[in-house]
Amino acid sequence: MTQLGGSPRTRVRRIPEKAVHDVEVLHAVLDAGLVAHVAVIDQGQPFVVPVGYARDGDTVLFHGSSKSRLFRALSSGAPTCFTVTLIDGLVLARSAFESSMHYRSVMALGHCTQLAGEEKARALRVISDHLLPDRWHEIREPSTQESKATIVLALPLDECSVKISNGPPDDVPSDVDRPVWAGVVPIIERFGEPVDAPDLIAGTPVPDYVRTWSR
Amino acid sequence: MTQLGGSPRTRVRRIPEKAVHDVEVLHAVLDAGLVAHVAVIDQGQPFVVPVGYARDGDTVLFHGSSKSRLFRALSSGAPTCFTVTLIDGLVLARSAFESSMHYRSVMALGHCTQLAGEEKARALRVISDHLLPDRWHEIREPSTQESKATIVLALPLDECSVKISNGPPDDVPSDVDRPVWAGVVPIIERFGEPVDAPDLIAGTPVPDYVRTWSR
Repeated sequence: MTQLGGSPRTRVRRIPEKAVHDVEVLHAVLDAGLVAHVAVIDQGQPFVVPVGYARDGDTVLFHGSSKSRLFRALSSGAPTCFTVTLIDGLVLARSAFESSMHYRSVMALGHCTQLAGEEKARALRVISDHLLPDRWHEIREPSTQESKATIVLALPLDECSVKISNGPPDDVPSDVDRPVWAGVVPIIERFGEPVDAPDLIAGTPVPDYVRTWSR
Repeated sequence: MTQLGGSPRTRVRRIPEKAVHDVEVLHAVLDAGLVAHVAVIDQGQPFVVPVGYARDGDTVLFHGSSKSRLFRALSSGAPTCFTVTLIDGLVLARSAFESSMHYRSVMALGHCTQLAGEEKARALRVISDHLLPDRWHEIREPSTQESKATIVLALPLDECSVKISNGPPDDVPSDVDRPVWAGVVPIIERFGEPVDAPDLIAGTPVPDYVRTWSR
């Protein structure tokens, strides 16, 4: 059961009006992202690494190398924080203090479970289907050796917060009359034109499903 | 003095051929980013929060609320990890295992120093100049009260790693003959058309410097 900002650790204290308490919004932000930043503590030092991920119901799935110290620590149940941030624009207020950004951000706290067997195989497909929709059916599935080289982790979305900033500049009234432009400069992410691999069999076309991808 | 992957904690163990040992590349990645993910440990739990930042020589600068638990912990010298990740594309290999992403990623470990006085005032301007180039001269500078409400932190780039992935799919030879497209789908970030604040004084034009911003 997803708790949104219901725990003392994930209650949004700073600018609480930007907190969102709607599980559908949590899911939508996670579904719009590709990469999370995941933390693990090693000998008192936090480390933050980027990971590709997918949401699977009330869980997020991600994978890394079996040889990675950090993934081994996560698979042993070390406490983690999984943060996804989408930057949507620059907010140009009339003061430095009110200048900010548009963003959608999710933070999930908890402990990962390492997946094995059928669950692991399925999770690898779920991650691929999120990052590379429709790709799975035409690529080679992981071999036993490749699967052994991969740790797949599941983090339940039990203790989460969501913050969304998407409004106009919030200037104090005495600043609004300043003769300076104010507003928002959107930041837009999109896919560019696909680039063939140098060793591609000549004439192999870019698949139709890739053409349907959009951001 | 910046150490790039020279410490046991930042040596790139996974896919070491993607490690970069050039301080100019470290600086270029940091200068291309807007937002870092910063970790702090609170009661054994890591937290990862997004922050706008700027590089200032061999240091990165970022700010947050004086009321934030996490910023207060960082200002007390808690060990941190500052990670910047730029996602440049999806790599479509012929196997699930070799499918990956193009990225540029920096990780810096260390302890922050809280800035005060002239250093703090200057840092706020350096951050603004990075995120909103040329904007500072026409906005209201922070008041004493606003400055008190802000913690500004400096993290020296002493212990860092840089990883860059920008090549074509790295398929095993036995996969190259598969009749499937392989290549890279670039991910491109750009600025959209500026949106006026609803309370903008009618007729105030978008400044020329905003028109020069590009990503």
